Parts: sequence; structure tokens; C-alpha cells
Amino acid sequence: MKRPETPPRPILVRALAGEATSRAPFWFMRQAGRYLPEYRAIRATAPDFVAFCLDPEKACEVTLQPLRRFGMDAAILFADILLVPHALGAGVAFKAGEGPVLEPVRDAASVARLEQGLSGAAHALAPVYETVARVRAALDPEKTLIGFAGSPWTVATYMVEGGGGHDFMRVRGLAQREPDVFQGLVDLLVDATIAYLGRQAEAGADALQLFDTWSGVLPAAGFERWVVAPTARIVKALRARHPGVPIIGFPRGAGTNLKRYAEATRVDAIGLDAGVAPAWAASELPRHACLQGNLDPLLVALGGEAMDTAARGILHAWRDRAFVFNLGHGITPDVPVANVERLSAMLREWRREEAP
Amino acid sequence: MKRPETPPRPILVRALAGEATSRAPFWFMRQAGRYLPEYRAIRATAPDFVAFCLDPEKACEVTLQPLRRFGMDAAILFADILLVPHALGAGVAFKAGEGPVLEPVRDAASVARLEQGLSGAAHALAPVYETVARVRAALDPEKTLIGFAGSPWTVATYMVEGGGGHDFMRVRGLAQREPDVFQGLVDLLVDATIAYLGRQAEAGADALQLFDTWSGVLPAAGFERWVVAPTARIVKALRARHPGVPIIGFPRGAGTNLKRYAEATRVDAIGLDAGVAPAWAASELPRHACLQGNLDPLLVALGGEAMDTAARGILHAWRDRAFVFNLGHGITPDVPVANVERLSAMLREWRREEAP
Repeated sequence: MKRPETPPRPILVRALAGEATSRAPFWFMRQAGRYLPEYRAIRATAPDFVAFCLDPEKACEVTLQPLRRFGMDAAILFADILLVPHALGAGVAFKAGEGPVLEPVRDAASVARLEQGLSGAAHALAPVYETVARVRAALDPEKTLIGFAGSPWTVATYMVEGGGGHDFMRVRGLAQREPDVFQGLVDLLVDATIAYLGRQAEAGADALQLFDTWSGVLPAAGFERWVVAPTARIVKALRARHPGVPIIGFPRGAGTNLKRYAEATRVDAIGLDAGVAPAWAASELPRHACLQGNLDPLLVALGGEAMDTAARGILHAWRDRAFVFNLGHGITPDVPVANVERLSAMLREWRREEAP
Repeated sequence: MKRPETPPRPILVRALAGEATSRAPFWFMRQAGRYLPEYRAIRATAPDFVAFCLDPEKACEVTLQPLRRFGMDAAILFADILLVPHALGAGVAFKAGEGPVLEPVRDAASVARLEQGLSGAAHALAPVYETVARVRAALDPEKTLIGFAGSPWTVATYMVEGGGGHDFMRVRGLAQREPDVFQGLVDLLVDATIAYLGRQAEAGADALQLFDTWSGVLPAAGFERWVVAPTARIVKALRARHPGVPIIGFPRGAGTNLKRYAEATRVDAIGLDAGVAPAWAASELPRHACLQGNLDPLLVALGGEAMDTAARGILHAWRDRAFVFNLGHGITPDVPVANVERLSAMLREWRREEAP
């Protein structure tokens, strides 16, 4: 009897599962973005940013754009971490040149109002799941589709501060002064995030990433309570329901708390910002975690030998471990397309067994 | 023959030298500052902030104020990290509500102009040395006087950005694109800082602290070149000239690079921000380094049991090491004086041998 052929798992998923792959799987945070002229062309047709994210045709197209040029091993869903608070009714608006603005959440009544939005959030986010399905259908089977969400702490910072670009004193103050109120908000975001990422997995996402952009502003005890604990709950719930879908945690700026994060959350892979020395990560982080990162985006803006040398330094430092090559933070709008092409070409050609 | 009596070394100096002292020596970053009504009263008599810092009578008085109330074990010189660029001719001005503004330094010609200011800088900073001498003369012999400077990297960020509150893209860009120009600026600041801190030690400072407020924004390779290397040069030069004066390095946000910093710079003590778990610091940082920190200033604003519990957590975690109790960052203006008194009273009463 002939066995049915199962397609081999994509290289990036194998790396996330702990395999030291022969070549370097790679993608870049914010690879779909303003540095690409074809992105800017589509973005110009959509004046409202939230509506743009919730337009499956446009979101699918910009998700796929960078892979056509550079051949990354993964597409990452084009969306925004503030779609979850938007779906909960937090009144998210993006103002040109100002960044996001939200109705501030600073008391129990506001949290209770948002809790009523939880059951309707899945419906409000349906266009995202349609985008996931469209991208997966259009994507080469060898490529990975990464879904994502903001982590509860990071999303909560925007909700409490009422936007971005603040000094985090309001959110840190609320978390300290009224931990029960803030715990209610975080619990709501944990539930919403589990539902949101679960639906992305059902729609076809092969892996999931939690972005914790602002985990670095917390003191150690707050990091434990507001970053580690909610992340562990999300990982546990998703793993139970979608055991084959690896989860990448990216606790930006976590510093000395990185090891604890990796051990306690049990993420499959850990995203590293550029502040982490690649050799430190290779020797200090637990081996169950695939490493992902961590080239300084400024070097991609600069390009040339400086970029190549730093990228090769990461590959060399991680030659004995499972890893996914990425940047330490998102590609900035000023990055020349040619530099991304040069970096991608170098990564496509690298082979582990030939590495010095 | 009667031996001449030498006064015992102050407890804080003994801790910095590696002694596990029986009680907890303490001081607080920004302990002379706006949360104190007596500070605000004197500050109101001095409209220009640079002139205020360079007024030995006023600077001496505000340096001593917090010790009268709280009995800290150290006074820290009242000054500003931008006095060095001011003395070099960088055109430093403090505008109310805006923070510091400097003439931006972004090319070799600007660095060369500032280099001509080096020989005159010692004279321009003479009032600071007079403040040190006055404070030391007025201070109880059991109390330590800590002199300080900004680290070259942190001071350079203000000089290149032209002020504070920026995203560091100009200074990081200059360091990457024109490393020789930036190295020239850092070398100049290394020389100026060695001279400045050396004169503080000669004037009576018992210990010296290097504030590296922005070390956390650098990628790992940049941290090595712009934080570790210049700091190591400063420590080496000062130790050769003033072997009895311990040096505290405070690389805020250094995260996973902390261990490397402690090992490579050979500072006597390492300042820790609130993001570092006290237990991590106790077990991971090299034992030659006294620990200093790291209570979240937000907890001092909050006060009560939350503050006490967190403070006791630090004392407990560090019970087997030499340490100086401090905050993870400066006291904020909104901190109630009563909370500082409560914390100080608890610290004065703590005894290592009675610790559980």
C-alpha cells in the first residue's frame, strides 16, 4: 500500500521545532512596510490605517510583497497589535504623524465595558482570519505563514496611556496602585489574545509570534507578573489546542530576564533585540528555545560590509543552535531596498556545514 | 608609643571595597532634588540651571539637605552630567519644560573645536571642585561624598542629538556611519572625564560614580566599543592616580551586557536598574563588584507595604554580598518626603546578622 505523501515541513517551522537546519531560515520584522515602494503604493489607496489592516485583499497583497522580492522563508501577517483593543471597543485611531490614539483605560468601569466587547471581538477580527486564509492559499508550501499579536502587557500600555510615545508612568502607576484593576485588563487581553491567535492558527497560520515591544520598561517583579505569567498562560492554552503551531515570544528589552522568560513561558523560540550579544544568547539561553534575531536595523539602513560582517557574526555565534535569522527590531522606512536584497542573498547562500 | 588614631573608613566606602557590612549603607539617586521643599526654595533663587550647578554655596547646601532629613550614608555632589560639555564649549542651555539644548556635534570640525576647549575645561569646572571641598568639610567623617560624571557615551548622546528626549538615531547613525569622528568625540570625553573626576577626588570626593543613563540603547557591539572600552579607560586612569577612591559604574539598561561590563571595566561597584532581578544580580554578577541598587522609584512614590516588601526583597537577595542600597533610577519629583523617611528608617534599622 502506497503511503500518502505528506509535504516536508517548511524549514522555518523545523528551526522553530529545534532543528539546526543546514541553511539559515530568515524573515525580517516589518518586512512588509514603508521602505517598499509597492507597499507605499497600496497604502496610498487606504487613508484609514485600521480599515487598511482589516481589508483582506490589501492586507494579503502587502503580506506577500516582500517574499516576491527577497524570498524570505516566512510571510508575516500584515496587521497591527492594536487590532485587538480596536475589536474590544477601545476606540483606536491612527493619526498621521502622531501614531495611535486610544480612549484611555484607567479604572474598573472601563475594563468592565471592554469585557463586554470580548464575545464580539472574534467577529470584528474576522477580516484578519480571512487575510490569513488568503495568504496561506497563495503562499508556496515551503514558506511559513506567521500570525501574531501584541502581548497583553504591551497592548495594555497603549490602552492605559491612551496611545504610544509616552513614558509609561500611567500604566506602571496603575499596575502598582491598582493591581486588581490592571490584572482585570491583562486577564481580558490574555483571553482575547488566545482566541485571536487560535483563530489565526485555524485559518492557516503555521507559527505565531507574541510581540512584547515594551517588556523592557518593567521592573523585575512587574516583568514576572505582567509579562511572564500572561505569556505562559497564552502559550499553554494555544499549545493545548494547536500543538503543531510553534510560538515565538519577543520580549524586547528583557535583558537579564530573558533566561527566566524562556524557561517559564516555554515559548518554542525567543526573539532577541540587538542589545543581546549573539554569543551570550548562544551560551546562556536554554537549548529548548530556538533563537530568533537579532541584527541591528540601523546596519540594514547602512548596508555594505558593516551589515555583512554583523550578520555573519550572528550566524557564526549561532552555528551550533537552532535559529531563525531576523533583525533585532523592525525595518525602518529609510532602509534601501538594495540593502535588504544584499542581506537576503547572503542569507540564502549561507550553509551551516561550510561555516568556519 | 601611642598610635595615631586614623578614623575608621565610612561604611559606604567599606561596602564599595567589598566588605559585607553589618548594616545596609544607602543613598538614593537624585536624593537632592525637586521632591524636597527646601531644594525647591533654593532652586527658585537661581533662574539659570547651569549657573545654579556652578554656584558652590547653593550646590553645597542642596547636596547636604537630604542627609539632614534622612541620614543617608552618602552625599552625592549636586551637579549635572552636561557640565562637562558646557565646559568644553558645547553651548548647553536648560529651557524650562523642555530639558537641555546643546549645539549639535555631528562632524569632525565640531569635535576639533571642542578639543580646543579641553585645556580650559578644568578652569570652567573649578566651582564644582569648590563645591566638593565645601561639602567634604561640612560632612560628618562617617559619611561618604560621592563625586560623579556622565559616561562618555551618555554625554555624547546629548551632544550629537542636540538635547535629550530623542530616539538616538542621530548619535547611533553617527557612531555607525562615521566611527572615526565619533571615536574622536568619545576620546575627548574620556580625557575630560578623567580630568574632571580626578579633580573631584583631589578636592575630597571619597568615591566616584559614572552615570551611563543611555547605555541600554546600544546594540551589543556598540555597547562594547562605546560603553565598555571608554569606561575601562577611565577606571584604569583614575585607579592609577587615586587608588583609594572606589568607582561605581551605572550602565542603565545594560541587561545581558552587565556581566561583561563588570568584568571588563573593573569598576568597584555596579549600579543596577530596577529591571534587574536582585536574585539574578546576586548569583550572576562577579563577586569583585559591590552591588548598588535597585528599588523601583515608582515604589517610593507609592510607599507603604509595597515599598517595604520590595526593599526587603533586595536586602534579602543580597544578604551574602557586599552592597549599597539605592534606587534603580532617580527619585521623581512626585515622591512624598514621608515615603523617603519611611524607607530610610527601615534601612537604618536593618542588620545583616538578623536577616532571615
